[in-house]
Amino acid sequence: MTTTSQTVRKPSRAMINGFDPNRLGELPEQMQKNIRRRDQSLGPGYRLFYDTPIEIVRGKGVTLFDREGNDYLDVYNNVPSVGHAHPKVIAAVHEQMQVLNTNTRYVQESILDYSEQLLSTFPAELGHVMFTCTGSEANDLAMRVAKYATGNQGIIVTSGAYHGLTTEVASFSPSLGIGVPLGANVRVIDAPDALRYSSDQESLEDHLRNQVRAAIADLHRHGIGLAAFIADSIFSSDGVFAGPAGFLRPIIEEVHAAGGLYIADEVQPGFGRTGAQWWGFQRHGIVPDIVTIGKPMGNGIPVAAAIFKPELLIEFGKNIRYFNTFGGNSVAIAAAQAVLDVIREESLIDNAHKVGEKIINGLKDLSQGLDQVAEVRGSGLFIGVDLVTDRSTLTPDGEAAAAIVNKLREERILISACGAQGNVLKVRPPLPFSSNDADRLLEGMARAFKTLR
Amino acid sequence: MTTTSQTVRKPSRAMINGFDPNRLGELPEQMQKNIRRRDQSLGPGYRLFYDTPIEIVRGKGVTLFDREGNDYLDVYNNVPSVGHAHPKVIAAVHEQMQVLNTNTRYVQESILDYSEQLLSTFPAELGHVMFTCTGSEANDLAMRVAKYATGNQGIIVTSGAYHGLTTEVASFSPSLGIGVPLGANVRVIDAPDALRYSSDQESLEDHLRNQVRAAIADLHRHGIGLAAFIADSIFSSDGVFAGPAGFLRPIIEEVHAAGGLYIADEVQPGFGRTGAQWWGFQRHGIVPDIVTIGKPMGNGIPVAAAIFKPELLIEFGKNIRYFNTFGGNSVAIAAAQAVLDVIREESLIDNAHKVGEKIINGLKDLSQGLDQVAEVRGSGLFIGVDLVTDRSTLTPDGEAAAAIVNKLREERILISACGAQGNVLKVRPPLPFSSNDADRLLEGMARAFKTLR
Repeated sequence: MTTTSQTVRKPSRAMINGFDPNRLGELPEQMQKNIRRRDQSLGPGYRLFYDTPIEIVRGKGVTLFDREGNDYLDVYNNVPSVGHAHPKVIAAVHEQMQVLNTNTRYVQESILDYSEQLLSTFPAELGHVMFTCTGSEANDLAMRVAKYATGNQGIIVTSGAYHGLTTEVASFSPSLGIGVPLGANVRVIDAPDALRYSSDQESLEDHLRNQVRAAIADLHRHGIGLAAFIADSIFSSDGVFAGPAGFLRPIIEEVHAAGGLYIADEVQPGFGRTGAQWWGFQRHGIVPDIVTIGKPMGNGIPVAAAIFKPELLIEFGKNIRYFNTFGGNSVAIAAAQAVLDVIREESLIDNAHKVGEKIINGLKDLSQGLDQVAEVRGSGLFIGVDLVTDRSTLTPDGEAAAAIVNKLREERILISACGAQGNVLKVRPPLPFSSNDADRLLEGMARAFKTLR
Repeated sequence: MTTTSQTVRKPSRAMINGFDPNRLGELPEQMQKNIRRRDQSLGPGYRLFYDTPIEIVRGKGVTLFDREGNDYLDVYNNVPSVGHAHPKVIAAVHEQMQVLNTNTRYVQESILDYSEQLLSTFPAELGHVMFTCTGSEANDLAMRVAKYATGNQGIIVTSGAYHGLTTEVASFSPSLGIGVPLGANVRVIDAPDALRYSSDQESLEDHLRNQVRAAIADLHRHGIGLAAFIADSIFSSDGVFAGPAGFLRPIIEEVHAAGGLYIADEVQPGFGRTGAQWWGFQRHGIVPDIVTIGKPMGNGIPVAAAIFKPELLIEFGKNIRYFNTFGGNSVAIAAAQAVLDVIREESLIDNAHKVGEKIINGLKDLSQGLDQVAEVRGSGLFIGVDLVTDRSTLTPDGEAAAAIVNKLREERILISACGAQGNVLKVRPPLPFSSNDADRLLEGMARAFKTLR
């Protein structure tokens, strides 16, 4: 890896694309007033997006509106994945709320219908689903089961991974930074950054394989067996690494050889976003032991899940009482069912593929000759644009990314950034993003790229 | 405590009031089929209520309906706290879903309005609220903040406590049983069981104070400082211990003297259920450092929160990135606002007080002369009936409780049981439970009590 010894231009903010509270005085009065109310009630843990935060009052499809009626093209939000205020989801939730909203300790058919349909989108080995409310809870449960089933505690993640916010999950989310220490049972391998990896000695795949071997050996040296390797299948917080497809395979071989499990975190790439199949791991031709899903699952109604190879749950299910009060309740299932139906009815996976390809090609065209755009990459409607000080050094340039994000925000086009240095533009719109929407994005991006050297 | 050396009659099931899968063959064919589908898709981690599980298809107010149209009096569910399918909550959610459902990184006024109203129900010292999706996430966050703010790791809980399902929170939830080990940083004190506590030497309050002192000393001996004491203000899973009001005070004095924090878990008793004030801790005349709330907050739409003394969040908020994707989203807040409004408009706290008192008095009358009913206790619409083999030994009788729960279920009255031995009937209906509903419950209970010796 060539980045380690380089100076990195990182945005001077606590959070990628976060509003700097010191600039409060520069904002319009009404916005200042509401931000003061936020600080007063919600406290200092709450952050806002953009140099100039946005007050959102309405959303429809891929468009958001502020108080003044200005429209914003949403190229960021993956939770309202079938579009803001989708009528089918609204109707399903409304109908169910009038009838019943209760928990899984009573028999209900709707959760059975949904579970069977959901499981049919997975390889046959993945046979059971357990519902939670958030991706964090799903990852927390997945790791509990992995530890229980293997009898081990060791965890391997990539260096920029984010898997959620519970105490346990935060302990294996290095992207949270030095304020949140990694567990003593956690080891970190490089992100699969093919752009910056260059070696005559070994391929990227071999490099990753060797890193996993070293991590497992180091765990063993500390008396810790391997419970699981967990990875976001699109490596979103690492900086969006979609290819080369198949690079995960050698990692999983090593993990399985050491008796560990492979947990595919599909909270971000799942439900068709990568434009090829339902799940991001499928692009790599591998079958996980556990899969976690969340964000887009209910289009904003909190619902998430973990999917397991059934043998992993035999003892856990018998010995551990796990009841998630809201998890998979009647209304959550109604929302999730509607989302599943809409993805199929509106061919959104196909749309993600087609429009994603158009955006990727368009961005590649735009970046011809731009020394600060090192790479455009991604799959479907999960796209990253890697910005650097110059192509010869490939030094990540977080300041350039922040400038582009905020320039687009002034044009009312909403994207964000990711990557360990905040230098990768994150282009991740709701799935019904159209070819015309792509044109508006590309036109805005063309103007924003002009600010680059 | 007199129970320790006694033989306990505990129901022979993995979960209090859980269906025994070995009896599947005794159920109607349609029910068998759906339970097989559950086992197939959801796996062995999922449990059902009652010897004869119920398929619920509709709910309204305090009534649930099965597939055949039979009505059940709901004396158990605290999530649909303002009543199943409450029209005001339905309308609020429907209206909001048509407009917008997005996250807290955009400015929105509704979350500010709600937060200010919510905080006004707490003592002035509790100034900030952070939103999560579940009570488990709220307790997980509360403990993260407590550890961060104190720099300590030690936790004290009661012996039958349940605080949630994340890896961290499960590690301080002894009611989950020996399958879920307590953390090495966790110490346990007795539940405040005034019925079984008898001593000429010291009062129950002094006993609890001394237990906390001993727990703190033992933590110190292991090099662990005290982060927090956390307790459900109604001690629901311990067996419903509401009084004598004030018994928590000496515990908190000791906790504070040791530099620890007091976390009031209001996930079960909160939002007026105890019939006196908004929050269960208020009955004890103490101010917690952190409060967690959940279950009834959105009447079934997943939303929960932790409320903090602001000084606890200064460093945490600055250094720790905590973003809960669905936590406090636009629709969750709309549901929560409607619940707050309905509690006020329908005087549900007052109703909980009045109807709760009627039920408690009625149950006391019914248990006159019954040697197996040791005590009727509670506050508002959170009521426990402590069943024993006989009043002289006070030996908990979980089998008797299971028999009553299932006898009532045959009468289509839904309650459950709690307590470390499953021997305490748990009477906890939605808050709009009327005087007539109380009559139906008491008539059923009169018949069920006839099965007692």
